[in-house]
Amino acid sequence: NSELKVFTLNSNPALAEEIASNIGIELGKCTVTTFSDGEVQINIDESIRGCDVYVVQSTSSPVNQHLMELLIMIDALKRASANSINIVMPYYGYARQDRKARSREPITAKLVADLLQTSGADRVIMMDLHAPQIQGFFDIPIDNLIGVPILSEYFENKNLDDIVVVSPDHGGVTRARKMADRLGAPIAIIDKRRPLPNVAEVMNIVGNIEGKTAILIDDIIDTAGTITLAANALVENGAKEVYACCTHPVLSGPAIERINDSKIKELVVTNTIPLGEDKQIEKVNPLSVAPLISEAIIRVHERQSVSILFD
Amino acid sequence: NSELKVFTLNSNPALAEEIASNIGIELGKCTVTTFSDGEVQINIDESIRGCDVYVVQSTSSPVNQHLMELLIMIDALKRASANSINIVMPYYGYARQDRKARSREPITAKLVADLLQTSGADRVIMMDLHAPQIQGFFDIPIDNLIGVPILSEYFENKNLDDIVVVSPDHGGVTRARKMADRLGAPIAIIDKRRPLPNVAEVMNIVGNIEGKTAILIDDIIDTAGTITLAANALVENGAKEVYACCTHPVLSGPAIERINDSKIKELVVTNTIPLGEDKQIEKVNPLSVAPLISEAIIRVHERQSVSILFD
Ligand SMILES: Nc1ncnc2c1ncn2[C@@H]1O[C@H](COP(=O)(O)O)[C@@H](O)[C@H]1O
Ligand SMILES: Nc1ncnc2c1ncn2[C@@H]1O[C@H](COP(=O)(O)O)[C@@H](O)[C@H]1O
Repeated sequence: NSELKVFTLNSNPALAEEIASNIGIELGKCTVTTFSDGEVQINIDESIRGCDVYVVQSTSSPVNQHLMELLIMIDALKRASANSINIVMPYYGYARQDRKARSREPITAKLVADLLQTSGADRVIMMDLHAPQIQGFFDIPIDNLIGVPILSEYFENKNLDDIVVVSPDHGGVTRARKMADRLGAPIAIIDKRRPLPNVAEVMNIVGNIEGKTAILIDDIIDTAGTITLAANALVENGAKEVYACCTHPVLSGPAIERINDSKIKELVVTNTIPLGEDKQIEKVNPLSVAPLISEAIIRVHERQSVSILFD
Repeated sequence: NSELKVFTLNSNPALAEEIASNIGIELGKCTVTTFSDGEVQINIDESIRGCDVYVVQSTSSPVNQHLMELLIMIDALKRASANSINIVMPYYGYARQDRKARSREPITAKLVADLLQTSGADRVIMMDLHAPQIQGFFDIPIDNLIGVPILSEYFENKNLDDIVVVSPDHGGVTRARKMADRLGAPIAIIDKRRPLPNVAEVMNIVGNIEGKTAILIDDIIDTAGTITLAANALVENGAKEVYACCTHPVLSGPAIERINDSKIKELVVTNTIPLGEDKQIEKVNPLSVAPLISEAIIRVHERQSVSILFD
């Protein structure tokens, strides 16, 4: 077997450290800086000839910067004769631009797949892709890990009574069902409807939440509009308390303010996107995906099945 | 012939306006914004089906943002059935990362070529590529226009006496020779040498500059270290006055301060990179490349030779 090396770029250095330490190796040495004019400069400071290289980089904000860092790193690794270039991208940016919703729109999630392959990626390990169809945009192997087990375990250990797992929209019902199975709980669905154009949406709740502890689950929380409206609707309709969780805490724009002002008691997230300093508030609790990802890397490297991590 | 349309993204809107107006058309309608999390959103607001589309975008700072805007636009145009997608990239970012100068370095100029082609570009029109070899990184037609005629014409109209055209380094001698031919002037070369490691460089001047009006010419002026040291060396060695010129005013970091503090009387540049507000100082004089580029676009679109613009 070729030697395994893990490198980090600028999106998730702490997560990468944790992954390397779990695997029992040091992070590979490389320097990622910018020239005076803002162009990315990468120097790989140790030989990687013949190695299986894993590069940890989420394409979180600043997304274009992080993506270009990654593409340039892949180019450098390829030219330095890596045996395989494996991308560990806990958060896949541009995943919501996955189809032509209107005429003359780009499909940027496909473009990103093409860019990664063109630069020389051999495999991508991701987590909770916004649309699983994005796997089909690639012609190389993709492993799409899931956050539900990590999030569920956290709530299991809290020993909450009389739980209901709630999907904030129709798209997330499968995810809510998976969590509910793990917690032995029923599900409910927020069924947003706009009765007439230009009339405010109605938050109709399908399922019984009265007096229960609700756990809202989503894949991405971005501006937190959907999740906070959902939480407040749950409380107004008789839920005892409301937790929320997601894999990818994008938390852009008004998100933190909205969460602080909402009825959400605690927001449980993961570190696929690190929380910037302005996002480290009491209500937001980040769990680490490092154990899961380290296990996946070891299994991939040793040619063992990764699907065991999905159950 | 298919209909010709010109679109602009965010790097050079004023130049694109000027180009469209020279051609006698309106700029195509499209909206380039960013989502709350910083992802680029592009909407093309008119049909371009069957059209020959020219997209004006330099990959100047912020380079990764500008590059991704361009790639996403190309993706959208391709999916919207453009007949041909022609990139007008007056300044090609990452052009200085054009070879492995050290072990395990990326060749980002090649990566950028691959990214443009993968996303669907059919042709690129550029100006004064830092290394003409970069044309070989592409498998699609490239037209590399040159700035020397525009810069030379400006100095010709100034009617300066007893000119010498000076190259600030060995790499730029061919360019200096071209300008000198147009101005009917001799050339000189700054021959930087480091006599011993860790000893300051010596600015040796090859050629006669005594009492003359020197015009320094380079392709890119970035932090302006080279050009201002060269100008000062020329004055110290007896030049009467020193002008400087370049095609691409990157002007990053300490550039403006250095130029202001230097012996350079006037720095003549072009608008392949627009001068940000902090760079609009009296000494810096931008000339427009719009007439040249409009002519090139018309010639390309009408399948006429473009090489006439090089003479
Ligand atoms: N970064 C983004 N932030 C907000 N909305 C986005 C973003 N990227 C794509 N979208 C929009 O989100 C919609 C897709 O979301 P979804 O239906 O949840 O997959 C599309 O209409 C996109 O235009
Ligand atoms: N954006 C940049 N700013 C400054 N130096 C750069 C940049 N990109 C590449 N370089 C370096 O510039 C050198 C190439 O410059 P040149 O010899 O003029 O082609 C290489 O050593 C590169 O590492």
